[in-house]
Amino acid sequence: MKGSYRAFVMVGTIPGQDEEVAKKLLAFEEVLEVHFISGDYDLLVIVEISLHGKTIFTPVQEIAQFVVQKIRTVNGIRTTSTMLPLRSITKLE
Amino acid sequence: MKGSYRAFVMVGTIPGQDEEVAKKLLAFEEVLEVHFISGDYDLLVIVEISLHGKTIFTPVQEIAQFVVQKIRTVNGIRTTSTMLPLRSITKLE
Amino acid sequence: MKGSYRAFVMVGTIPGQDEEVAKKLLAFEEVLEVHFISGDYDLLVIVEISLHGKTIFTPVQEIAQFVVQKIRTVNGIRTTSTMLPLRSITKLE
Amino acid sequence: MKGSYRAFVMVGTIPGQDEEVAKKLLAFEEVLEVHFISGDYDLLVIVEISLHGKTIFTPVQEIAQFVVQKIRTVNGIRTTSTMLPLRSITKLE
Amino acid sequence: MKGSYRAFVMVGTIPGQDEEVAKKLLAFEEVLEVHFISGDYDLLVIVEISLHGKTIFTPVQEIAQFVVQKIRTVNGIRTTSTMLPLRSITKLE
Amino acid sequence: MKGSYRAFVMVGTIPGQDEEVAKKLLAFEEVLEVHFISGDYDLLVIVEISLHGKTIFTPVQEIAQFVVQKIRTVNGIRTTSTMLPLRSITKLE
Amino acid sequence: MKGSYRAFVMVGTIPGQDEEVAKKLLAFEEVLEVHFISGDYDLLVIVEISLHGKTIFTPVQEIAQFVVQKIRTVNGIRTTSTMLPLRSITKLE
Amino acid sequence: MKGSYRAFVMVGTIPGQDEEVAKKLLAFEEVLEVHFISGDYDLLVIVEISLHGKTIFTPVQEIAQFVVQKIRTVNGIRTTSTMLPLRSITKLE
Repeated sequence: MKGSYRAFVMVGTIPGQDEEVAKKLLAFEEVLEVHFISGDYDLLVIVEISLHGKTIFTPVQEIAQFVVQKIRTVNGIRTTSTMLPLRSITKLE
Repeated sequence: MKGSYRAFVMVGTIPGQDEEVAKKLLAFEEVLEVHFISGDYDLLVIVEISLHGKTIFTPVQEIAQFVVQKIRTVNGIRTTSTMLPLRSITKLE
Repeated sequence: MKGSYRAFVMVGTIPGQDEEVAKKLLAFEEVLEVHFISGDYDLLVIVEISLHGKTIFTPVQEIAQFVVQKIRTVNGIRTTSTMLPLRSITKLE
Repeated sequence: MKGSYRAFVMVGTIPGQDEEVAKKLLAFEEVLEVHFISGDYDLLVIVEISLHGKTIFTPVQEIAQFVVQKIRTVNGIRTTSTMLPLRSITKLE
Repeated sequence: MKGSYRAFVMVGTIPGQDEEVAKKLLAFEEVLEVHFISGDYDLLVIVEISLHGKTIFTPVQEIAQFVVQKIRTVNGIRTTSTMLPLRSITKLE
Repeated sequence: MKGSYRAFVMVGTIPGQDEEVAKKLLAFEEVLEVHFISGDYDLLVIVEISLHGKTIFTPVQEIAQFVVQKIRTVNGIRTTSTMLPLRSITKLE
Repeated sequence: MKGSYRAFVMVGTIPGQDEEVAKKLLAFEEVLEVHFISGDYDLLVIVEISLHGKTIFTPVQEIAQFVVQKIRTVNGIRTTSTMLPLRSITKLE
Repeated sequence: MKGSYRAFVMVGTIPGQDEEVAKKLLAFEEVLEVHFISGDYDLLVIVEISLHGKTIFTPVQEIAQFVVQKIRTVNGIRTTSTMLPLRSITKLE
């Protein structure tokens, strides 16, 4: 988690609009990957915010703003559930 | 729980209307705080009812009336889930 | 959200140990209130972290550490679900 | 809701102990009916508290006490979820 | 369960239409009680089907038909979840 | 649904005992198929009860008995959720 | 799982359109059975994809395509949840 | 998805064993990242299977085997929920 902060947003779409929603989401600079998934939600979206020069709380606030003001205004989205990593460990750390 | 009764209402909003819903909810006298939260719901609303001069059941009935007749009539709300404290303990008790 | 950061932790307890768990949780300095609630979880715990002199991410990291290293090590807890406020508005702001 | 207050408690049991749990629950004076149900929970328990001579909040507090101190101490119970009627209407009202 | 078969239907309503939906549901002959409840659903509806002269499967089929053809066609209902008692025990049995 | 009645039982197992539980379940005469599935549950079990010579309610009662007295007594099962078909349509009807 | 791959799709319908949705779903070649079920979803749909001459991933991709492009475009569907069998065992294996 | 197949496994841990479970999971070759997350589960685990020289179904079968035989046998895990990408799109495709 050196230079960026990731969050995982599960998205429920209005049936029949999945493909279009996925494309629109991927067009956002902050969206890295969109997965069509099995289970109660339809899409798993991986979002990344750069930490460069950020002050206290900024990354969490930016994720919040991004989800509320960008993702949730895309037509065809019915519901979202954001999973915020509280701490992350990876192979390389 | 001397002079007031609190309830916690989780609110799912129609995507794209979160900010507006939050402002409308905060405008109600009974609403103390509105939190944009991670997870399956979008807003956590803290509601407080005064106990002054109330008779039996009144606070629970007022919470019920407030949720059904005020909160749930706000445009942009998709679903609500009310958590009623059955008993509460705080640092000061 | 000037001097502190709050989070809401829903706790599922092992049946029969609710009272004891609630008391132990309230004994933590960071725990302000514990509510016995109706619904799928048993307790709603309000946690507060001071922001005094914190650097980037510290409050979220402290909540995470507090939930994992303090709350979740209390005997009698079966499961927890943390709701992180992404942004909060109150009557006084 | 003239002389009594009802609540609905969904109970998840430890597999293999359903019958025994159901019998123990029905033995409580406050338990009227126990239903083995399809779905995520195993039992639906109908609980009734008399309102006779009660002061403010007493019925809700008694339900809370009954669930925490009686139902949840029965061996074989894994989890409970209480649905509190905020208001009720019946054919006879 | 001598002369009748009961089922419990949890109903999620479109916010703002709870009162109207509750009244319409209670107007059905098969609906005994409607409770406004705390939690993920908004109403708990108690349904009763007479067993008089019924042949195999009829009560379950009638519940199914009643939920699909009557309850779910009421305007203002967003979702339903039916809990079918597989077996019931009461104080009087 | 001419000569038999099917139900779908989702099973949550104790981690590490999935294979063993699946084999034990398949050994029951009433169990036709066991699927290891993605999602919140671990196994989807297809159960079939013969309708031969059954009187009123018998199939539903047998499913109930089978789930409570057979499936739920298998070691390694943590939770079950039964979906009862209220009505079924197939290609051949 | 020799010549075909099955998946289980739980479907939530818009209330009042269950019958019509069920008929439309059964009209798809890939849909074997449609069950009206108790619980949080309304229909359980059994889908089968032939494995004949398929290359790597094709069956899972076809299920995905079928759910997104066929099932989810049927009018009256509100939400779907797909359970993918990771491995299956049956009486005959 | 050229040379590998990813799946997302949400893990619920036994409270108090989160750190230890996370470390054990990261020690598996197939586990790329482990995130401590807010919400109903405790860890989000990103798993990757190489597609090199695989025949039909192998990747999904390997994920299934890995989840059942490796992840779910780690001490301290209470429950898992696997989200299988049915299709994925990324910035680079």
